[in-house]
This record gives sequence, structure tokens and C-alpha cells, in this order.
Amino acid sequence: MSLLVTGSIAIDTVSTPYGVSEDCLGGSSVYFSMAASFFTPVRLLGVIGSDCPFDLAKVFAGRDVDLTGLEVRENSKTFRWKGTYSDNMDDRRTDCLELNVLAEAPPRVPDEYKDSKYVFLANTAPALQLQLLEQIEKGVFAAADTMNCWIENELDDLKQLLKKIDCLIINEDEARMLADEHNLIKAAQKILDTGPSVVIIKKGESGSITYNSDGESFILPAFPAAEVKDPTGAGDSFAGGLMGYLAQVCKTDSESLKTAIAYGTVAASFTIADFSLQGLTSIDKTDIDGRFETLRKLTHF
Amino acid sequence: MSLLVTGSIAIDTVSTPYGVSEDCLGGSSVYFSMAASFFTPVRLLGVIGSDCPFDLAKVFAGRDVDLTGLEVRENSKTFRWKGTYSDNMDDRRTDCLELNVLAEAPPRVPDEYKDSKYVFLANTAPALQLQLLEQIEKGVFAAADTMNCWIENELDDLKQLLKKIDCLIINEDEARMLADEHNLIKAAQKILDTGPSVVIIKKGESGSITYNSDGESFILPAFPAAEVKDPTGAGDSFAGGLMGYLAQVCKTDSESLKTAIAYGTVAASFTIADFSLQGLTSIDKTDIDGRFETLRKLTHF
Repeated sequence: MSLLVTGSIAIDTVSTPYGVSEDCLGGSSVYFSMAASFFTPVRLLGVIGSDCPFDLAKVFAGRDVDLTGLEVRENSKTFRWKGTYSDNMDDRRTDCLELNVLAEAPPRVPDEYKDSKYVFLANTAPALQLQLLEQIEKGVFAAADTMNCWIENELDDLKQLLKKIDCLIINEDEARMLADEHNLIKAAQKILDTGPSVVIIKKGESGSITYNSDGESFILPAFPAAEVKDPTGAGDSFAGGLMGYLAQVCKTDSESLKTAIAYGTVAASFTIADFSLQGLTSIDKTDIDGRFETLRKLTHF
Repeated sequence: MSLLVTGSIAIDTVSTPYGVSEDCLGGSSVYFSMAASFFTPVRLLGVIGSDCPFDLAKVFAGRDVDLTGLEVRENSKTFRWKGTYSDNMDDRRTDCLELNVLAEAPPRVPDEYKDSKYVFLANTAPALQLQLLEQIEKGVFAAADTMNCWIENELDDLKQLLKKIDCLIINEDEARMLADEHNLIKAAQKILDTGPSVVIIKKGESGSITYNSDGESFILPAFPAAEVKDPTGAGDSFAGGLMGYLAQVCKTDSESLKTAIAYGTVAASFTIADFSLQGLTSIDKTDIDGRFETLRKLTHF
């Protein structure tokens, strides 16, 4: 079923202990779309400047990614991020951030996208996420990501957003900050009380923990990675695999959600194995399914 | 089948955000025995001073814990530990450590214990662990714990020990330190290369990850705990549940080991819910089996 993602398209420069990837393609909507396209057609909504060196039609060639919602804005510059990961990849530092076109008006939702049943709002200002969501007919399942700066500075907007979405996908520290509660079980419950029926808490190399408003929970470790070359895009690939699977099966019950989280976990594990999108572009669905089965064997007893 | 544990018996004073538990019973062999006794008879080997205020026969009343190997040493003082946990329980500080009787000669292994088929050597100086292990006939499965100070200061002894045991149970940071490798998969492989056929890496609230010399691995999250009152003894309770189950079923194949790790995880989750041993003494086997099934539901997809 129709899956819409709205998020950034970036020119990234990433330094990790494995090397430097200069001016490579990145951005939340790009990682998301690439991961989700293994499962279902994707509608991408995003904006770039006329300086963007990447031909997204070429990037997504052979994948069912609709670029009707890709706006190329003349006289604007593409979003840029430059970051460095620590030796053990546990921390990253932003060296340079140029919002550029992301600081301008958001892209318009094309009419063809308005009936999207599954929607992912990648991390951006919650007022903007709300504004985008309101342009889309009420669908089946809307999920959003957020981050610490919005929790600190735009909490009222974020609370409005939480009332409108079905699922919040959030990092461990952000969940604690948003709920003002260190214990993650209690933090999740506090977040569920504010609107969404599902909260998925990402714990990096420790995987994820999911709670729903029926009192059910699900814990899944990350796929153990012998090589992590570049963690950039892991969270958006996770969301892409997850939402891609849900849209594919047109179901959001808790068993489907567990399977979706496992697929998201697998998608993220491929992303971090290489720089930029290479971890995802160098594989096919068989690789994803193979690792999905391995993850099952690794975790079941 | 016969399960022997050798480790400390302690008088603990523990401060956590939930309160202070003064001069309470603790020690690795005590937590281990209590957890393992839900599964199988346990033989405890340990030493206390004549000052010890606890009657261990009473503590273990109704449980099949053999205290033949408990030595009460006149004119010696019992091991004491005083520690404080941080607000979020992630860190703990040792306020005071009195080795007392633990700095003297180790207890003698009684003849009746020498045919023990399953052996757990709780954390202590590796030379001592070796000396104890050598007094026991070669059994089915010997596991040991260790810690950073032995890795730093007694590495040669520890390497000798690793050649003699089947399983090392170790914390995440200690595994990295022992292997001199940050990536846990590679660290585990390096440790396996030095002797044990199984290495179980404990990751606190993120659970555990296990590798064996056949290239198999198993990842299990911790049981999600809404209340953590006192994490003391979690690791030894984990080992107790794990070794207790293995000794009960008399099997050490990888499927049995997975089940054993799940039981260890459950045992630890009860320990941390209350101070000292109260989390384990207030439950019965039905509670353990119930939480075991819940853990399965929480992690399977």
C-alpha cells in the first residue's frame, strides 16, 4: 500500500575510523526510501537546491521510488551535513551544518501523494511535520521521528504532533528527555499517554524496545555487526525497513509490527556496513531475507 | 547433576536511590546458589569469619544447597563491601572494601564435592580460581567470571585459567579489555581462541550476547524491569540461573545453553527488583517459569 516519506536529502561529508566519504548522498528521506523500496513502492517528498550533484532518478533506478514530490529549487542550495564519528563509533560530532533549502518553505505535497496510507515524517521541526501531515488524508499509520533540540525548544508543537501520529520512533536518550523519566518502560508509557499507540525506542547497538497502548512490548537486539564503517542513516533505514514492510502487508497489528521491526533492524545493519548508501545499494531482497532469518535464529530460544 | 559454586559470602551495605540496605547478606556464591537452587541441588564452597551474623543454613532452608563446603574461620572477619549506585543505576562506586577472610587461604574443597560435574568459579584472583578448579575431577562444564583488575594485573594467571574452563562469563567492558578489541564480535572470537568454547558477554540492561567455538551466537535482551531497586548480585544470579538449568538438564548443547541464558536472565531480573536476596527469596519456580515465557513472547517474532 502507498507509503510516503518526507525528510531531508543531504550532501554529507562523513569521517569515521574507516575513512572519509566526501560530498556523498545522504539525508533521512533517501536512506528511508532506499530501505523501504525493498518492500513496497515509496513516494518521496523532499527538496534540494539546484546545486545538488546527485541525480535521484538514477540513484533510485530500478526501485519503485516515486519522485513526483522531489522539488528542485532554483537559486537554493542543498542541505549539507559534515560529521565525525569517534573511534568506537559510539559518538558523533557535527562539524558543520548548512540547512540551506531546509530553512526555506517546505515542499508542497503533490495531489497524487495525498491518499498515502502509510506516512513517515523524518526528523524535522514538529510544526513542519504537522503541517505536512495535515495535507494528507487520514491514512492507516503515520510514524514520526524527532530529536533532542525539538524536545527542548519546540515541545508544544511536538505535543500537538504526538496527538496526530500512530507511532513515534525515537532514540533512547530522547525518550527519556521527552518523558522526563529515566526508566524506559515508564518513559514509554508516559509517551503513549500523550497520543501515539506505538512507541519504538532505538538503542543503537543494543537494538530497540517497543511498547504499544495495549500494554504489549517487544525487544529486539541490533543485528551483530562485525564491521561498522559508517552509522549514518541507520535510524532512517530502520524506519524504512519497518514502514516498508507494514505498507507491503497492509497490516499494523502487533505481530506484523514485530516482523516489521526485525526487517528494520536488518535494513539498518546493511546501511552501517558501508559509507553513504552503498550498504543498501549493494544488496538485494534475498540478502535482507537471509539476514532476517539469521536474526530469528540469533534471538529465539 | 552436581553443581558446585565457589565465591564470596559478603556483608554488604548498599545505597541506591531506593534506600540503604545496611549489613545485609551478599556475595557472589550466595546470589549464585539462591538462583541456581530453583533448578538443581547446589554445593556451596566459601569462607566466612566468626563475626558473620547470618545463619546460612537458615538462609537456604527449604532449598537444596549443600553447605558442607562452608568454612567458618575463627578469629577471621567476613568479607565486607559497601557501595553506592548512581541515580540512574548505571554506575556504582565502591565506598569501602574489606577483604578480610578472602585475603587468607582459600577454603578447602571437601572430598564430597570433588566429583562435581558443573562448576562455577565466581570472580576472584584467577590463580585462586585455578587452584580450586584443579582440586575437582574434570567435570562436564566449568564456567568462570572475572573482572578488570585481574585482566590488568594477573593476565598470565587468567590466560592459564581460560585454557582450563569451558565458559567465560564476562562484562562487556571487560571483554573488550581482555581481548584488546572494541568490537564485541571480534573480542569474543579472540577470547574463544584462548581456550573456552563459550563466551557469554553481559551487557547490563541490554542483556547478553553469547558466542561459541562452532561459530554460533545468541543474543538476548535483559528482562525489562519497571523497578530496579538494587542491581547487586545480578551477574551472579544470571550465572546461577544459567548453570542451574544446565546442571538440571545435564546438557550443554547450544539449544540448552540458550534456554539456560534465558533462565539466567530471568533470575537476574528478580534479583534487581529488591535489596539483597529478597527478590529471589520472595518468589517460587512458578514465577521464574512465568517470566521465562514472558521473555520468550517479548523477544520472538
